[in-house]
Amino acid sequence: MYKVAEEKIILVTNDDGVTAPGIRALIEAVSPLGRVVVVAPDSPQSGQGHAITIGTPLRLEPVTIFEGIEAWQCSGTPVDCVKLARARILHRLPDICVSGINHGANHSINVIYSGTMSAAMEAAIEGVPSVGFSSLDYSYEQNFVLSKKVAFAVAKKMLETALPVGTLFNVNIPAATEEDFKGIRVARQADAKWVEAFDERRDPRGKKYYWLTGEFVNRDKGEDTDVWALANNYASLVPVQFDLTNHKLKKQIEAEWTF
Amino acid sequence: MYKVAEEKIILVTNDDGVTAPGIRALIEAVSPLGRVVVVAPDSPQSGQGHAITIGTPLRLEPVTIFEGIEAWQCSGTPVDCVKLARARILHRLPDICVSGINHGANHSINVIYSGTMSAAMEAAIEGVPSVGFSSLDYSYEQNFVLSKKVAFAVAKKMLETALPVGTLFNVNIPAATEEDFKGIRVARQADAKWVEAFDERRDPRGKKYYWLTGEFVNRDKGEDTDVWALANNYASLVPVQFDLTNHKLKKQIEAEWTF
Repeated sequence: MYKVAEEKIILVTNDDGVTAPGIRALIEAVSPLGRVVVVAPDSPQSGQGHAITIGTPLRLEPVTIFEGIEAWQCSGTPVDCVKLARARILHRLPDICVSGINHGANHSINVIYSGTMSAAMEAAIEGVPSVGFSSLDYSYEQNFVLSKKVAFAVAKKMLETALPVGTLFNVNIPAATEEDFKGIRVARQADAKWVEAFDERRDPRGKKYYWLTGEFVNRDKGEDTDVWALANNYASLVPVQFDLTNHKLKKQIEAEWTF
Repeated sequence: MYKVAEEKIILVTNDDGVTAPGIRALIEAVSPLGRVVVVAPDSPQSGQGHAITIGTPLRLEPVTIFEGIEAWQCSGTPVDCVKLARARILHRLPDICVSGINHGANHSINVIYSGTMSAAMEAAIEGVPSVGFSSLDYSYEQNFVLSKKVAFAVAKKMLETALPVGTLFNVNIPAATEEDFKGIRVARQADAKWVEAFDERRDPRGKKYYWLTGEFVNRDKGEDTDVWALANNYASLVPVQFDLTNHKLKKQIEAEWTF
């Protein structure tokens, strides 16, 4: 088993909540690599994006559900968990932050909506090499065997490599058997989106309400995208940045626009 | 007064909620440019990032607080508002989407946490040229005179110009007098972050809780950033993208990494 020279601190978080099978799988996957500390939401936070809690106070409680592992649950969002972990639990930066394993895909445009990826992005903003893992197998009964292998390999590589400040990866794992799995493929974010429909219903008092539903539309035919990789039984690894400046458009309008 | 040839539909939203003075100022600023339709949260949603509501249903109610303007309040996040506006109110895409005017800055890394910008980003993902406006004057008593001038100028320019698909701007307005104001400056996102502190308190039962607090740290000395522009009495206009792929790091690890 791989062992690092010095003990590294690995912060583990997620957005499905501390009791989700995916975070247990991730803890099992990365604990051979260093000292794991878990700080995760006390309830499911899917779709929270990069939300932070500013209008209400936060609670933080120790939990003992992972044998031999220091773990905390937090009443806030995934991003709150990462902020609290540094400031009130570790009192230092972890060596890496791993988030997930999410129950469901976070490829392409989903990186924007994903609490899993926002937690990892928050750590990356703080200067910690970070990664979010998501499995395309949505079922709570899945065994995570393939996902755990991918998570171990990526986390090990990240701990062994000198990475640029702000390094952040979005890793998705296909719903494939180990036999069919083709390996990890570096990819770019596919240009895809959701087209929403909204179910309209009426409550018992006759008042309308809406449920968000949607159809995923991939308009990107490139073979270098995360969507392509996953459809071809690869795990996709997309390096992600949080400088959102559109430098090309910036250059264009600097030259052309006056107000 | 400027008048477009065909009537354009301008979707107005925000994250401070439909009753915030900033959205009223924005409606006043852009209504000479087309038909305004307002869909905004029914309560403050600051710091919601790109959160969407998937675990609870959404409510949508007409409001009559803006004379002669079609307006709706929604129980969800700013992103939910944009999704519902297209799917259940307009039944088409608006010509532009304007979000704000936010009470408080959304420059630099704040673009990640901002509900104001996430609403605009959602519309941009749908293919609508979009912009978020934020004022560095935090007070609810401010008159928004300067912010309204900037919002009008930018929205007018966007309606007059053929823009690439996915165009999205983050516009911040300094807390300056009209005399001191130097104009609108195209900028890049400054490399800045928040360092959190978390106030620890005890509730009446003696249990700990935490309030998020933080200090803003700008580590970017460039004179082409939004933070620099604002400190020098310019409004900053940053073109923003939602392809988060770090193409430089992608190239590097494609060449160097094996798992």
